[in-house]
Amino acid sequence: MMSKVDMADKRAELDVAEIERYLAAAMEMADEVRSMIKSFITAGFRIDRKQDQSFVTSADLEVEQRLREMIGSNFPEHGIVGEEFATINPHADFQWILDPIDGTEDFAHGVATFGTIVGLHYKQWPIVGVIDHPALDMRVSGAFGLGAFQNGSRIAPVSSESAPGDGGVRMVISARANFTPYDNSGPLFDALVRRYPNHRIYRSCYGHTLAITGHADVMVEYGNHIWDLAASQILIEEAGGKYVTVQHLRLSDIETIYGAVFGRPALVDDITGLIRRPDR
Amino acid sequence: MMSKVDMADKRAELDVAEIERYLAAAMEMADEVRSMIKSFITAGFRIDRKQDQSFVTSADLEVEQRLREMIGSNFPEHGIVGEEFATINPHADFQWILDPIDGTEDFAHGVATFGTIVGLHYKQWPIVGVIDHPALDMRVSGAFGLGAFQNGSRIAPVSSESAPGDGGVRMVISARANFTPYDNSGPLFDALVRRYPNHRIYRSCYGHTLAITGHADVMVEYGNHIWDLAASQILIEEAGGKYVTVQHLRLSDIETIYGAVFGRPALVDDITGLIRRPDR
Repeated sequence: MMSKVDMADKRAELDVAEIERYLAAAMEMADEVRSMIKSFITAGFRIDRKQDQSFVTSADLEVEQRLREMIGSNFPEHGIVGEEFATINPHADFQWILDPIDGTEDFAHGVATFGTIVGLHYKQWPIVGVIDHPALDMRVSGAFGLGAFQNGSRIAPVSSESAPGDGGVRMVISARANFTPYDNSGPLFDALVRRYPNHRIYRSCYGHTLAITGHADVMVEYGNHIWDLAASQILIEEAGGKYVTVQHLRLSDIETIYGAVFGRPALVDDITGLIRRPDR
Repeated sequence: MMSKVDMADKRAELDVAEIERYLAAAMEMADEVRSMIKSFITAGFRIDRKQDQSFVTSADLEVEQRLREMIGSNFPEHGIVGEEFATINPHADFQWILDPIDGTEDFAHGVATFGTIVGLHYKQWPIVGVIDHPALDMRVSGAFGLGAFQNGSRIAPVSSESAPGDGGVRMVISARANFTPYDNSGPLFDALVRRYPNHRIYRSCYGHTLAITGHADVMVEYGNHIWDLAASQILIEEAGGKYVTVQHLRLSDIETIYGAVFGRPALVDDITGLIRRPDR
């Protein structure tokens, strides 16, 4: 869904006013969700486990339901792919991709780095992305050709220098638990943390936000689903960074596992080179 | 400074009212610092590098200076050990230990997890600890015999169960960069992240706060200084958890490197056992 290989950029078919309308809708959705999540934090919520043993809370379910209602009433012909409920209009050109609470385990434990992810893709090309962190009062947002923003302020272009001028590379990476279940990539995690020892691990989309804003230099995301990455490609590209899909495993008709590296272009090239080398 | 071996607990010499007075002073210091740091975030600050290439900002310097003024006017006979300035009254029974901004690199880059650490030790025994996170509106505080608190609410005792009832162990650990410079403990980092793959890395005291509040199960801190750990032992012990010093390297007359494991007692035992095993 995120590959550009052998495809003309379909986004040229859309005019700016239309893209602005979708971005405005995504921002309205993020506003609504932020206020819902703050209410859940105050009032409490139910915590359950899904079949795969991952966490789900009543907040995840109600937030995604509300996002689906908003999309359904504004854009009834659009498709919806979300973490918690079934796909809608799977053959539509426009696909909204939703993770109501990314980092649910952290949310359930009172850790502040969780976030809501809303992405809109058109003919498999990302056009709108929003990542909202209710507990941090922080949001990144952007759309094709319109730039990337942090809390409404335009994000300065991500540096193209290979190394940051101010010290060691600040890499954010998925936990080792994300590297092992699908394709036994534990040794890749080990090689990456050796090469870039000034790393952070958040287990949520906070790392995406930091790479997009330039507060971290590069993000390495592994073993995730489409909704975890739905907003990040358009956001990093609009911020002047580079995005490369490095893992694409079709587990079944309904489940595909994705990994991606994004951030400063020269670092993305270095890390994708490392991933491809058999002798790392 | 943190070992209890062969020492009677000197804290029995202090009465409750006195300890309450020190805790109140530490809370007042944290209030003052929080408001200063919020002002720096709004107004901006200067970023420099120290001789060891670590970051220092004008905020670190001014905050520590202010903390020293407050201690000096309230407790002129007490000692002060801080990250940014010279030691005062090194032979005093009471030693205030200060990290004005722990996670300065993150603070300088706009990452929210940095914090201020204030600890008070009496004859080498920790009696008061405060960790304050201005960007998260979160504080943990506690004192000997008085309990541990999160934003003023008593923290429920850390569970003594070996594994959390709700899934995989949530370990927070220092980055690999903290394990290699002093005693080549990189392989220990590798063994720990394999054993507990549901880990997080913050590179700041936010992981301490999560272990103390029970939001994470255990914290493994390596390659740090006394001011990084000055508040954590009293806080985790008052929250019902266990604290073990696992690294104590005297580099020179003025520099000692510390590591510690703290959190759920059974997990602390498991990890300290792993650290001691030569065949891990």
